Amino acid sequence: MTRPRIVIIGAGFGGLAAAKALKDAPVDVTVLDRTNHHLFQPLLYQVATAGLAAPSIAAPIRHVLRRQANTTVLLAEVVGIDVPAREVLIDGEGETGRERIPYDHLIVAAGATHSYFGRDDWAEHAPGLKTLDDAYAIRNRILATFEQAERLTDPSARAACLRFVVIGGGPTGVEMAGTLAEIARHTLPGEFRRFDARSTEVLLLEGGPRVLAAYPEDLSDSARRQLESLGVQVRLNARVTAIDARGVDVSTPAGSERIGTGNVIWGAGVKASPLGQLLAQSTGATLDRAGRVQVLPDLSLPLHPEISVIGDLAVIESGGKSVPGIAPAAKQMGWCAAANVQARIAGQPVRPFVYKDYGSMATIGRHRAIAQMGRFKFGGIFAWWLWLFAHVFFLIGFRNRIAVMIDWAAQYWTMQRHARIFLAGDRKRQ
Amino acid sequence: MTRPRIVIIGAGFGGLAAAKALKDAPVDVTVLDRTNHHLFQPLLYQVATAGLAAPSIAAPIRHVLRRQANTTVLLAEVVGIDVPAREVLIDGEGETGRERIPYDHLIVAAGATHSYFGRDDWAEHAPGLKTLDDAYAIRNRILATFEQAERLTDPSARAACLRFVVIGGGPTGVEMAGTLAEIARHTLPGEFRRFDARSTEVLLLEGGPRVLAAYPEDLSDSARRQLESLGVQVRLNARVTAIDARGVDVSTPAGSERIGTGNVIWGAGVKASPLGQLLAQSTGATLDRAGRVQVLPDLSLPLHPEISVIGDLAVIESGGKSVPGIAPAAKQMGWCAAANVQARIAGQPVRPFVYKDYGSMATIGRHRAIAQMGRFKFGGIFAWWLWLFAHVFFLIGFRNRIAVMIDWAAQYWTMQRHARIFLAGDRKRQ
Repeated sequence: MTRPRIVIIGAGFGGLAAAKALKDAPVDVTVLDRTNHHLFQPLLYQVATAGLAAPSIAAPIRHVLRRQANTTVLLAEVVGIDVPAREVLIDGEGETGRERIPYDHLIVAAGATHSYFGRDDWAEHAPGLKTLDDAYAIRNRILATFEQAERLTDPSARAACLRFVVIGGGPTGVEMAGTLAEIARHTLPGEFRRFDARSTEVLLLEGGPRVLAAYPEDLSDSARRQLESLGVQVRLNARVTAIDARGVDVSTPAGSERIGTGNVIWGAGVKASPLGQLLAQSTGATLDRAGRVQVLPDLSLPLHPEISVIGDLAVIESGGKSVPGIAPAAKQMGWCAAANVQARIAGQPVRPFVYKDYGSMATIGRHRAIAQMGRFKFGGIFAWWLWLFAHVFFLIGFRNRIAVMIDWAAQYWTMQRHARIFLAGDRKRQ
Repeated sequence: MTRPRIVIIGAGFGGLAAAKALKDAPVDVTVLDRTNHHLFQPLLYQVATAGLAAPSIAAPIRHVLRRQANTTVLLAEVVGIDVPAREVLIDGEGETGRERIPYDHLIVAAGATHSYFGRDDWAEHAPGLKTLDDAYAIRNRILATFEQAERLTDPSARAACLRFVVIGGGPTGVEMAGTLAEIARHTLPGEFRRFDARSTEVLLLEGGPRVLAAYPEDLSDSARRQLESLGVQVRLNARVTAIDARGVDVSTPAGSERIGTGNVIWGAGVKASPLGQLLAQSTGATLDRAGRVQVLPDLSLPLHPEISVIGDLAVIESGGKSVPGIAPAAKQMGWCAAANVQARIAGQPVRPFVYKDYGSMATIGRHRAIAQMGRFKFGGIFAWWLWLFAHVFFLIGFRNRIAVMIDWAAQYWTMQRHARIFLAGDRKRQ
């Protein structure tokens, strides 16, 4: 008797949790991902801002799953899903032809990417932050900017060069703006001879009335004040209407404005993986505005109990509230989907997904953060220490935890950032 | 009175040593480099083989020199040297125009790059290892190869895929071949489901009669035996006559052979920076066959006492022997050139460069190395521990030393390599 074949698309928090939960099950698991690594995305902004080296927050997927004899990991881009035939189509390169991976159960955990709200021409000038490629691109741009400023002689050209505009007051935008301000104020002063790094301007543009809008209003206010104490200029109700190589056009209730800058970072929009669209076409599943797939309470698709969708690609309610697109939710969905697949194989009833909210936090800078855990809300130094330990604790792999702790301890004492390296080739590509 | 202006081209071991030696001198120093980092090149092969993260062996030049108030660091590519006007021309990008940097004294420490002996078309198929860009390119290729092998179904295609050919039995070739064999035997087994990583073949091709030819013959023999004990196939007197995307043509005393492989690493030839050519044209200096500049005993150029050439770009004898192109020699030249520049400014006599040989070592793999110190020669585990401590000791920056020690301790116990990450974008670019 052949064992049930389970294919998991994506090895982010959701997909990896599902794969691990199937460790001892009498099934054959295939994990497909288009990168070779699981990424600890909550710390990606640290790679982008030269605080951590990439290997500290990324682990090879096949290494994480090496002791699961029932699991095969393939580096592959999914190019199609043949729902009637129950096969996933993966790309081929060179001697590797396109391949069809048959499944009895499919778990789709393909995540999300950033969205420019239909203005994809902005991408070139305002890189977003979702992958390690993105993080390196942003790091190179930030480091090259300061190097460029040391070469410039015209003060007004230098001022525009040293103006960073971060678009979007969500967690990524807040982390990036706070960290950039810290770098300008604490890391770089003393290293340049032709300008003062403290003259760097960091602007955070948020289209709505407050930053970190997913949090209660008083925490949003606290976050804004903490950002401003770092020197970040926070502009609320500021909608971006154009981005080009030389600046950003902003519309506010007070009127329109042009902000000259060559350094824009995009933290505004998120949209689901295009696999959502593909599933909608082939199964009739419903998508929300961000392209996420509406799933049944057990995380499967209507009429297709053999397909589950989890993580940032899924839209579902739990306890009357919509489940947030954060790592703990994705993990919990992974466990639930794996359990339901096993229940179906065993002919047992499936269980609905129930999201357990352990709270959430956002970091702003050294000694600055906000946190919410049930009824408890707090901001500042205690939230920051909590954030720090939680993030180190959940990092994959013992070595990575130690490496990150050492890096952070060194950063804490010296205000330095050790990953301030960019490649000659990347400089040329800019 | 304006202070004498000293320009240093290149912040490798030689240029950085010269800059540091001028810390307290009443001069204005400008350091030009085309990357933002000083690279600890002896450990570059560890980045290429996923053992270390790039920031562990690279430090921002301006950070290293931040406390030297008399020193300006510029990220710039040197495009010309106007010897009569005493100015260095650097490139411009965007709003930064081309700039002329005037000097009273010039120290050229532009180093070397790899050479394909006039066959630059081989570069595409056989990447060399001189920069961080190179190291990432090789790392991506190695990791992608094993991922590719897990996708292949045809056994003969997989065998060619899993054959690595390293060309050149010098230190780089020996380190790369030894490490690749270790990865195949100790790091990866157990992580793949469709093949056994131990079936990986590693061939080291050397055109001459022995590996590490700069060492005494018995140490060369020891190195070859240590390589073979790791599973490397060492082929001596094997001259490469062609390289293409599918393999390598080799000519040996026994006849010609075609070796099928898609993985070739180049460790064979080195040639001096093109700045050597430029200096020869404008000063009449003599070049050797590798393009290195013949310098006077005090490291300056004939008829041009205001220009010194040091490091891998210089050719000079000391004690009747030619000074080797290794880090300690470059550092010593940097100190000597800085002292001579100061002597000239003070109107004092310059001193000739004397190379102090502290010995040399080459590593092959875990517990495997050779070392020579004066009359003492040894190979094996003791040489390896010595190599390890010497390299950690000389690494720039306290943090890097700790990070490298932790990585190596983790590698030592677990046989794992933590930097096994490659980017989705790099995969596409291949």
